[in-house]
Amino acid sequence: MEKISSENLKALESRYNIALINSLSGFKPIVLIGTRNNDGLENLAIFNSLTHIGANPPLLAIVSRPNSVDRHTIENIRDTGIFSINHVSEHFYKKAHQTSARYDRSQSEFEFCQIDKEYKDNDSVPFVKGSLLQIEMKLEQIIPIELNDTLLCLGSVQNIYVKKEFLGTDGFIDLEKMNLVCGSGLDSYYSPKLIARLPYAKP
Amino acid sequence: MEKISSENLKALESRYNIALINSLSGFKPIVLIGTRNNDGLENLAIFNSLTHIGANPPLLAIVSRPNSVDRHTIENIRDTGIFSINHVSEHFYKKAHQTSARYDRSQSEFEFCQIDKEYKDNDSVPFVKGSLLQIEMKLEQIIPIELNDTLLCLGSVQNIYVKKEFLGTDGFIDLEKMNLVCGSGLDSYYSPKLIARLPYAKP
Repeated sequence: MEKISSENLKALESRYNIALINSLSGFKPIVLIGTRNNDGLENLAIFNSLTHIGANPPLLAIVSRPNSVDRHTIENIRDTGIFSINHVSEHFYKKAHQTSARYDRSQSEFEFCQIDKEYKDNDSVPFVKGSLLQIEMKLEQIIPIELNDTLLCLGSVQNIYVKKEFLGTDGFIDLEKMNLVCGSGLDSYYSPKLIARLPYAKP
Repeated sequence: MEKISSENLKALESRYNIALINSLSGFKPIVLIGTRNNDGLENLAIFNSLTHIGANPPLLAIVSRPNSVDRHTIENIRDTGIFSINHVSEHFYKKAHQTSARYDRSQSEFEFCQIDKEYKDNDSVPFVKGSLLQIEMKLEQIIPIELNDTLLCLGSVQNIYVKKEFLGTDGFIDLEKMNLVCGSGLDSYYSPKLIARLPYAKP
């Protein structure tokens, strides 16, 4: 095995270092976060940091970098207290990737990336039309991570939108049947194929 | 689309609710976290919450539930300030899943799940022998998430162990070539197949 030490890391060229460290967290979920600010300006941004925090109460989190394009998302979430999670399928992953470009505040990624939007009961948050798993989230808490000036944005699940054909009788949602993608690094997209569902493990 | 509201969620049977909420975060990385306490007792536990926090400094995080089997892991990390991340490939995902069973504190999952271990320079932390991507981590901070009594455990990358054949000239690690698995829900394992690597997005 090749050993890359923290001393080696410090000496690496910046882009190489970013690609390497971004590979270390393995395969990641790919979602689009939809938001709107109090002036009605919409934003849509790709995130690969969605994390399950707990089932009861139902909590999910994303990590935001205040100095990146993510910042419009977190500003809007602070404004309205609400955001949408829209899972990305193979049929629109290229458009989803395009939302990572640095658009101005006044430019809606829905328009510039040609992604259709829809509103549901709550008119403060746009969803991605055609996303097969959409979740309306309520902001619960933003925890600053001072080590690198990022933010952990915690939300609670309000409404889940999913077609019946993807929802199992045991509550399991069939992400593969939806053709959801996962990612690695900053630029790679994958189609996961089921190996197996395993029974609950006992000693 | 079926709409499942937060009111509906509260009325769901517990196991159905857990399966449903655990599906919402999409595809997740699957890793084994190796630790040892100050008495030399080893622990190995499967986690699906590994998250990239930042590349510079190189930070990763896991979420731990203090009242679950995860707690041995977090207790050991507090003891020694160190842990190993071992990515899981298809050839040992069943053994990795078995570490989620509730073993006693005195029982090493390495032994009971028949997973080979190895020590490297630092003798405070066991690694999974045969894991194709191993990372030695130093504890940086444990942030309590009071909303549901979980812990965000933040570590910095110390040493990376990877075979040269999987490491690209741009720093990208080829997780698919390693046959790494990803998961969904609590019991499903997948083999991701590359769709494409996309260029850096510009407006």
